[in-house]
Amino acid sequence: MKKITLGLISLSTLIITTSGTLKTNPDTPLYKDKKAPVADRVEDLLKRMTLKEKVEQLQNRASGSADEIDRIFKGESYGCTHEMNRSAAECADMYQKLQTYMLTKTRLGIPILTAAEGIEGILQNNSTIFPQELAQGSTFNPALINRMTSAAGDEAQVMGIHQILSPVLDIARELRWGRVEETFGEDPYLIAEMGVAFVKGYQKSSITCTPKHFMAHGSPSGGLNCANVSGGERELRSLYMYPFKRVIAETNPLAVMSCYSSYDGVAMSGSAYYMTDILRGELGFKGYVYSDWGSVDRLQTFHHAVDSQEDAAKMALIAGIDLDIDDAYTKLEGLIASGKLDLKYIDQAVRRVLTVKFNLGLFENPYGDPAKVAKVVHSAANVAMAKEVADESAILLKNNNNILPLNLSKYKSIAVVGPNSNQTIFGDYAWTERNPKLGTTLLAGLKEVIGNKAITLNQAEGCDWWSQDKSHIAEAVKAVEQSDIAIVAIGTRSTFLGRSPKNSTSGEGFDLSSLELPGVQMDLLKAIKATGKPMVVIFIAGKPLAMPWVKDNADAVLVQWYGGEKQGRTLADILTGVVNPSGHLNVSFPRSTGNSPSFYNHYVTDRNEPFDQPGSPEEPKGHYIFDRPDPLWAFGEGMSYSNFKYVSCTVKDSVLNENGTINVEVEIENTGNRDGKEVVQLYVRDKVSSVATPVQQLKAFKKELIKAGARVKINLHVPVSELGLYNDRMKYVVEPGEFDIQVGGASNQIVFHKTVSVK
Amino acid sequence: MKKITLGLISLSTLIITTSGTLKTNPDTPLYKDKKAPVADRVEDLLKRMTLKEKVEQLQNRASGSADEIDRIFKGESYGCTHEMNRSAAECADMYQKLQTYMLTKTRLGIPILTAAEGIEGILQNNSTIFPQELAQGSTFNPALINRMTSAAGDEAQVMGIHQILSPVLDIARELRWGRVEETFGEDPYLIAEMGVAFVKGYQKSSITCTPKHFMAHGSPSGGLNCANVSGGERELRSLYMYPFKRVIAETNPLAVMSCYSSYDGVAMSGSAYYMTDILRGELGFKGYVYSDWGSVDRLQTFHHAVDSQEDAAKMALIAGIDLDIDDAYTKLEGLIASGKLDLKYIDQAVRRVLTVKFNLGLFENPYGDPAKVAKVVHSAANVAMAKEVADESAILLKNNNNILPLNLSKYKSIAVVGPNSNQTIFGDYAWTERNPKLGTTLLAGLKEVIGNKAITLNQAEGCDWWSQDKSHIAEAVKAVEQSDIAIVAIGTRSTFLGRSPKNSTSGEGFDLSSLELPGVQMDLLKAIKATGKPMVVIFIAGKPLAMPWVKDNADAVLVQWYGGEKQGRTLADILTGVVNPSGHLNVSFPRSTGNSPSFYNHYVTDRNEPFDQPGSPEEPKGHYIFDRPDPLWAFGEGMSYSNFKYVSCTVKDSVLNENGTINVEVEIENTGNRDGKEVVQLYVRDKVSSVATPVQQLKAFKKELIKAGARVKINLHVPVSELGLYNDRMKYVVEPGEFDIQVGGASNQIVFHKTVSVK
Repeated sequence: MKKITLGLISLSTLIITTSGTLKTNPDTPLYKDKKAPVADRVEDLLKRMTLKEKVEQLQNRASGSADEIDRIFKGESYGCTHEMNRSAAECADMYQKLQTYMLTKTRLGIPILTAAEGIEGILQNNSTIFPQELAQGSTFNPALINRMTSAAGDEAQVMGIHQILSPVLDIARELRWGRVEETFGEDPYLIAEMGVAFVKGYQKSSITCTPKHFMAHGSPSGGLNCANVSGGERELRSLYMYPFKRVIAETNPLAVMSCYSSYDGVAMSGSAYYMTDILRGELGFKGYVYSDWGSVDRLQTFHHAVDSQEDAAKMALIAGIDLDIDDAYTKLEGLIASGKLDLKYIDQAVRRVLTVKFNLGLFENPYGDPAKVAKVVHSAANVAMAKEVADESAILLKNNNNILPLNLSKYKSIAVVGPNSNQTIFGDYAWTERNPKLGTTLLAGLKEVIGNKAITLNQAEGCDWWSQDKSHIAEAVKAVEQSDIAIVAIGTRSTFLGRSPKNSTSGEGFDLSSLELPGVQMDLLKAIKATGKPMVVIFIAGKPLAMPWVKDNADAVLVQWYGGEKQGRTLADILTGVVNPSGHLNVSFPRSTGNSPSFYNHYVTDRNEPFDQPGSPEEPKGHYIFDRPDPLWAFGEGMSYSNFKYVSCTVKDSVLNENGTINVEVEIENTGNRDGKEVVQLYVRDKVSSVATPVQQLKAFKKELIKAGARVKINLHVPVSELGLYNDRMKYVVEPGEFDIQVGGASNQIVFHKTVSVK
Repeated sequence: MKKITLGLISLSTLIITTSGTLKTNPDTPLYKDKKAPVADRVEDLLKRMTLKEKVEQLQNRASGSADEIDRIFKGESYGCTHEMNRSAAECADMYQKLQTYMLTKTRLGIPILTAAEGIEGILQNNSTIFPQELAQGSTFNPALINRMTSAAGDEAQVMGIHQILSPVLDIARELRWGRVEETFGEDPYLIAEMGVAFVKGYQKSSITCTPKHFMAHGSPSGGLNCANVSGGERELRSLYMYPFKRVIAETNPLAVMSCYSSYDGVAMSGSAYYMTDILRGELGFKGYVYSDWGSVDRLQTFHHAVDSQEDAAKMALIAGIDLDIDDAYTKLEGLIASGKLDLKYIDQAVRRVLTVKFNLGLFENPYGDPAKVAKVVHSAANVAMAKEVADESAILLKNNNNILPLNLSKYKSIAVVGPNSNQTIFGDYAWTERNPKLGTTLLAGLKEVIGNKAITLNQAEGCDWWSQDKSHIAEAVKAVEQSDIAIVAIGTRSTFLGRSPKNSTSGEGFDLSSLELPGVQMDLLKAIKATGKPMVVIFIAGKPLAMPWVKDNADAVLVQWYGGEKQGRTLADILTGVVNPSGHLNVSFPRSTGNSPSFYNHYVTDRNEPFDQPGSPEEPKGHYIFDRPDPLWAFGEGMSYSNFKYVSCTVKDSVLNENGTINVEVEIENTGNRDGKEVVQLYVRDKVSSVATPVQQLKAFKKELIKAGARVKINLHVPVSELGLYNDRMKYVVEPGEFDIQVGGASNQIVFHKTVSVK
C-alpha cells in the first residue's frame, strides 16, 4: 500500500485515498469513514492525536481491578483494557458502557481494545470452563479445538471482548516449569496444528488471539518461571519459532505477546532483533505486540538491562513492544519532551494499535451483546462442548486384563479415593478460584453414571496434594477395604493466577524441583496397593510426573490434564465404558526427575547407546548407569477400548523434489468390538543431515473414528518443505537425501518404515 | 613470516631462508638443518613427501595396544602414537627404539609425536598418581598445580613422551555427566587459571599439552556423554570459550583436542567455523588439532552428518581436524585420487603437524631418557608432591563444635567404615585399574598417623558404592557401636577408561540420572547416625551429590575429589590435625537432583524470587514450591582449623577506563591459633548490562598462608578488560557503568561490597 503524506494537504477540504479517488467531505473525518482504506484512516487519525493521546493508545493500565477500569470513565484513556473480576453479565454491561463512553464522550471517539484471558474458556465469571490447553493438545483433534474456541468466542463476543490473551505456543520440554499445563505439549508440529485451530475458532467471532509467549519462554533454566532460556539460534528457529511461524502464516493474528525471559542472555521484550526483525521481517507478523504483564518494567527491575524505567520504556518501544501492560510507558511523553526518543517510534506503535482496531471494526461497532449473555454464556451446548473435549482428551495408558471399562455387574462397591476424587481441578487462568462445587467431580460423575444401580461408592481423600500429613490415609484404606475395587485419583492442584494458591503444585510461578508425586500421595498409593484390591489410578494433573511405581503397580492408568467443568463426568463415562478413550500423550512421562529431558524428539546423538537394562554392579552398562534415558510413557501413546490393527502403508511417490508432497495411505482395521477413534501418526527422520535433527518428528496425524470391525484408509500428507533444517549458515533448506517415514499409533509404536528420497 | 615458494628454485643448489641469508648446502636437506627457520624446514620437508607419507602424518592408529605400535616397526607410519599398556620403563625403552627407528630407518626420518594421558600423572604404569583434575581445582592454588605438572612432566620426559592429552577445560555445570571429575570445576576463571598453570608446568619439560574438549563438551543434554549441548553463541563465548581463550593466549599450546559433541546441532569436529574460524582466527591457536578418539568417524556413525567414512574424513579435514585418531583418515588418499578433495587441505594439516614436531625439537632429539626412569618416575619427591596437592585439595564443609581435628587423647576407639574406608579411588584416566593395594587408603593413613598410640581402629565397609545389598550394614553399625566415634567414608567409584567398570558410578560414559548417593549408602549413614555416636562423613567422589541429610546430620563433612595415591594419608592428616584443610569448593553441591543447575554464577534473572523457606500448604511460596534453588554448599566454600577475619578492603581507584586495572587490597587476620591458608576471593557483578550477566563471577583469588595471630594484606588485580560481555551484536565490549566488587571467603560469604565505575 502506497503511503501518502497527508500533512501537505488541508484535510478539511480534500481527502486523498490510496485508491486514488477524490472526495470532499468537510464534516466527517476520514478516519470515521468505514469505506476508506484502513491505512488512510490510521494516518488521518494519527495526525489528529496529541502526544498524550498517542501514548494512551500504547498502554493498558486497566488490567485487573474494577477500580482501574473506572479510571477510564473519569477521563483516563488506554489503548486496551483487561478485565478480571466481573461476571460475564457484569463484564458485558460494563464494556457496553465503556465503549459508548469511548465513542461518544472522548475527543476522538477511539474505541478500546478489550482483552480477556481465554485459554480454557473466558476468564469472566460464570463462563464455560473448557479443558486446559494441555488437555486440548492430547485430543490430537484440531477440528474439535476449533469448535471449542468458536464456542468460547461466542461467549466472549456477547461480553464485548475483542482480544484473547491465548494461545500459549510454548513448548513443554522443561517439566519442572509451572506452566506446562498451559501448553499444547512437547511437539512443535502438534502445537502449530492446535494453535492454528484455536486461533481460527476465535476468529469466527471476529476476536483476535494473542499467541504467546514470543518466544522460547517455556524452557527456563531450572524450570524456574521467567529464567533465561539457554539455547542456540538453530534450536530457536527449528523448535521454538516453528509454532509461531505456522500460526502467524496461517491465521494472521492481530496480536502477539512478548515474553518475560531472555534467550541466550538477550531479553526478548527489549530486543529489536527478535521482536521486529524476526517477528515482522521474517515471520511476516502484521499486528501489534502486547507486552506480557510488566515485562517492559522488568527490563530494568528483573533483567537489569537498563537502569531506569525511562530507558526500559525506550528500549522496549524501539524493540517493537507496541503496548505495555503496566507503568513503563507512562514515561514516553517525558522521553519525547527531553528529546531522548524519536517520535517515529511512538507513531509506529500507535499506527499498529489503531490498525488492529480498524481491522476489527471497532470504530463502527465495538459492542458486545449484553442481552444475549444469559443465552450464550454457559449454554448447554457450550457445556456439552467442554464435555466433548474432555472425552477426547483423557489418555488411557494401562489397562491390564481389560479391567476397564468397569464391569458394573461385577462390582457391588467401588472406592473412590485420593485428593482428586471429589474435587474439580481447573487449570491456571480459569475464572473459578477452585470452588469444588463448580463442575462435576469424579465422585459426582460416578454417581450420575451409576444412577440407581445397586453399587455403593465409598469415598475418602486420604491425603491432600501437598502436605506430609499421613493421618488420613487410613480412611482411604478403609474405604478400599470395604470395596471391590479402588479408583484412586491423584495428581496436582493448580493455582489461580498465583492467587489463593493453597495446596498449589502447578500453575504460573509454581515450579517444582522434583517431579515425584508431591506430598504423601505415593504413601497413599502403596497403602491402597497393600489391600490387594484392584487399583485403577486416575492421574489428574497439569503435567506429567515420574511414576514408574504406578506404571508397575496399577491395574489401569487414566490421565486427565484438567478436563474442564465436566471433568468428573468424562472420567466416569470412560471408567464405565460410556465413552471410549481416544486421547494420546502430547508430552512424555519421565522415569525420574533426573531422567530428563524425556521428550521424544531428541537429536540422534542424545540417547545414542543401547539401553536395555542398567546393568549390574559387576558390569554396569553406563549411560545412565542405573536407568534408561527414554521416557516411561512416550509421546503419542494412548489406548482405546477398541483394538486397531495397522494393515498396510503405501507411499505414493517415493522420489520427490523440494516442491513435492509426501502422500501416505495407511489402512487400519478396528479389530475390537467397539467403535473407537485412533490417532494415526506419521513421523519423519532425516537419515543424514549436515546439522543435528531429531530421531523422529511428528509431521502429520489424523484422528479417525473407525467402526468396530471396519477397515479404513487414511491419507496423510507432508509437504517436502516441512523436511528442512537450519543449516550451518542458518538458512532453512531441505537437504537432498533419504528420509525415513515412520507410521504408527505412537512415537514408540512405529509399525511401518518407508523411505522417500528428495532430489 | 614471509612465505617463499621454494618450488621455483632448485633446492639442491640454493636455499633461501626467510631471514634472507643465502647458503649452499648440497648434501643436507634444509628440513634437517636445525638452524633454518621452522617454516622453511616444514615447506622443504613437505615437498619431499609422497601423498602416502603426508597422510601418515595425519593419523594416529597406534593408540592403545602394543600390537598397534609394533606395526610401525613393520613399516607403517603415523604422525603420532599413544601408548596405554606399558609400564614407564617399558614405555621409555620402546619409544627409544621407535624414535631411533623413525630417524634412522625411515625414508625421511620423521620423528613420531608420542602422546600420553596425563590428567593426574602419566598413564603409563608405575607413574606417580596425582590427585584428579577436580581435586586440583579445589586447591585454588595454580602455582602448586604448576609444580605438580612439572613433576609429572619430568616423568613423561624420561619416558620419551612429548604430548599430554590434557587438561580438560570443560565446565562442570551438568553434574550428571560422568566426566565432572576430569574438570577443574564450574567456574571459567578458575579453570583458566588452573589450565594455564597446568600447561606451563608440562611445558617446562618441553611437553605440549592438549587442552580439550574444544568446546562446550561438558554440558551434554541429559548429562549423557557426547550428547548435543544446547546453548547459544553468547553462552559459548562467555562461558565455554573463556578457558580456551585464556590458555591459548597465555601458553600457546601446540595442540588442542576437538570434541565428540555438537553445539546447537553442529558437530564440533566437522565445523570449520568452530575448528578454524574461532579456534585459529579468533583465538589465535597456532598448533595442530588432534581429534578425540574416533570423533572423525563419528561424524558418520554418531552424528549422521554424512553418510560415508570418506565424507567424514573430508568434512573433518576441511573443518580443521589435522590428525585423526582412528580409521577415517585412511580414506584421504582415495579422496585425492578420486578428485574429491583438494590436496591443499592435506598439505595444510601436514604443515601444522610437522611444525609442532620441529618446534618441539623432535627432529634433533625425540628421545627420552630410559636410564633415568627408575630415578625420576614415582620418585619420593613426586609422591610427596602428590601428597601436597591432596593436602590442599580436601574441603572441610562442616565442623560442628570443632570436632575436627580429632582429639586423639579423647578417643580410645575409632570406627572407620563405609565403602571408601579402605579403598583408594583413583579418577578415570589413572593408570591403575583400581588395585586397592596401590596408594594409601583412609584406614592405612590412619594407621600410619596413629602409630603406636593406644587407639583401636574398627573397620567395616557396610556396603558398596552401587548395589542394593544392605546385608553388610550391620557390620558397620557394630564397628561403630564398639567405637567412640564414626568416620564414614562414602562417595563414588570411578571407571578406568570404561574398562573394568565394576561398581563404577563416575568416569567417562558412566553418567547418572540421579544425584542421590547411589546404592544403599544413605541407609548406611542413617543406621550409623542411629547409634548416637559422633559421625564424621568423608565424601570421596568424582562429583558433588545431593546430600542435604548429610549436611543436617553429620558432625563434620570433609570432601576429597580423588586425592591421588596418598589420598588416605592426607585424610588422616587432616582428621588428626597434622594438616590444616585449605581446599575450597570448585563446584557447588545441589540440594537435590532436580534442583539444578546449582552453579553459583547464574544469570541475574535465574533465581530471582526471595527464597527463605518453601512455604506451607496454606501459603505456598512457589518458585520452587518445596525447595530453594540455591546450592546446598556453594562455590568457594571451605573451612579451616584457623579462623580468618576479613578486616578491611580498599579499592585503589574506583573510576577507571577500559584499559585500567582494578586494584584491591584486602586485610585479613588469622584469629585462630593455627597457621592456615585462606583463599581470598573477588567476584564481580555488572550492575546493569545490555545482555544478561551473572550475579557474580570470580575474577581474582589468592591462596595465602597466614600465621596464627597474623594480619596480612593481600592484593588482587582485575583488568577492566575482564569485565566485558558479548553484546547483542556478539561483540566483546566492556559497557561503561558501575560494577559491584565482592570480596569474601566464598561466593556466598561476601564480606565487602565495593563499587567501581568504568567510564
